[in-house]
Amino acid sequence: MKFDSEQVLEGGALERRFTLGEVPGLLWTPAAARGPEPVPLVLLGHPGGVDRMYPRLAERARHTVAQGFAAATIELPGGGERPRIPELERARADLRDALHDKQPVDGIVDRLVLPLVELAVPEWQAALDAVLSLPGIGGPVGFSGGVIAVATRLAVVEPRISAAVLFAGSYVPRVMFADARRVSIPLLVLLQWDDEHNDRQLALDLFDAFGSAEKTLHANTGGHTGVPGFEADDVGRFFARHLR
Amino acid sequence: MKFDSEQVLEGGALERRFTLGEVPGLLWTPAAARGPEPVPLVLLGHPGGVDRMYPRLAERARHTVAQGFAAATIELPGGGERPRIPELERARADLRDALHDKQPVDGIVDRLVLPLVELAVPEWQAALDAVLSLPGIGGPVGFSGGVIAVATRLAVVEPRISAAVLFAGSYVPRVMFADARRVSIPLLVLLQWDDEHNDRQLALDLFDAFGSAEKTLHANTGGHTGVPGFEADDVGRFFARHLR
Repeated sequence: MKFDSEQVLEGGALERRFTLGEVPGLLWTPAAARGPEPVPLVLLGHPGGVDRMYPRLAERARHTVAQGFAAATIELPGGGERPRIPELERARADLRDALHDKQPVDGIVDRLVLPLVELAVPEWQAALDAVLSLPGIGGPVGFSGGVIAVATRLAVVEPRISAAVLFAGSYVPRVMFADARRVSIPLLVLLQWDDEHNDRQLALDLFDAFGSAEKTLHANTGGHTGVPGFEADDVGRFFARHLR
Repeated sequence: MKFDSEQVLEGGALERRFTLGEVPGLLWTPAAARGPEPVPLVLLGHPGGVDRMYPRLAERARHTVAQGFAAATIELPGGGERPRIPELERARADLRDALHDKQPVDGIVDRLVLPLVELAVPEWQAALDAVLSLPGIGGPVGFSGGVIAVATRLAVVEPRISAAVLFAGSYVPRVMFADARRVSIPLLVLLQWDDEHNDRQLALDLFDAFGSAEKTLHANTGGHTGVPGFEADDVGRFFARHLR
């Protein structure tokens, strides 16, 4: 893990850019330690393209750090400045065409999301190893955000993740429902009721499938990027309940 | 409005039983005034039978008062110690039989809920007149609870109600969807995902139908009476956003 640059954000979070192997990432920690106890970590998921997503990621990180956690994210395989992955690029182009022509997308979603899950999950686990080895950061760990299929698989295979906030805003292969049934950690699922990029019924079916004894769905009016500001506080309280 | 008795609850709320015409009710206010400003009022809905529901109502009232509001409720027509209403009694018995025999219930629900809405709504409005005329209690007003059909009609016809928390836990006649589309105040709808007394799809359809620009659904695992404790705090924050 190599740190490339650092700055202090408004509100007091220390932001550090790092590279782990060939994967770029960002780490946010409280600029001033609050006590002798290590702070829990929240991994911030996103749809790929850390630089493009940076304003929203930094905003979520500021909130997360203000609530007493560390936050970290890494670039997705094939995302941002990382080398393109031809099979994913083809699937993305096919998905755009199918949506434009109002054709079924199930097979294309499988070709896009399943390889992404297989590639991304070990990278997030390696990031977890690296970040948890830093002084002042400890368990338990939360995951917050998308890609929901990546987050779902991580929740199944990574025992260090104790609670997750999932954004129902991306395509989910039907075969991932078997993973969903194996998830047992507490979940908060955020659903934008009028999401133009999301199949509402699929999102409700997925919520139903999760095996967790404690799961909560927060659905709000509005489109894909219209998550109301008060949900940031709800996310903070969810992690405060489960990571402290 | 005639006050019959009073007591101070643990936590400091003053509880007063009253009778308004022939309708019994309960009023909870902060025992010590917090300042010169009148406190907003939250009406606590319930399925009928104030005495039977008293432990849960008092718990909700304690939370509501602790959050800086007054709370009030009245008995439903035909509920608790009030005179039975033969047509509602017949409909209730028919509903029990139909559910037991797994027969369709739509027509029975209409016979049960529509008269209840017509009878109950003017009584809640009269209670609002009486409670808001008391010193120290002012607008705006919130409504919290069921019967969801009564709450929906109240939200349409009563302009003093500024925000509502609805419990998706009772039967809703299909004709009430026209009322739902006319609701425009902010809503928080609580849905118990595994509610044994509730049609989940109907609850989701009703949430979809509400005309409000700001509406939020909180769905949680568990049965009818299993609403998690943290939702009481979410309800408080919802009213704090909209009644202050």
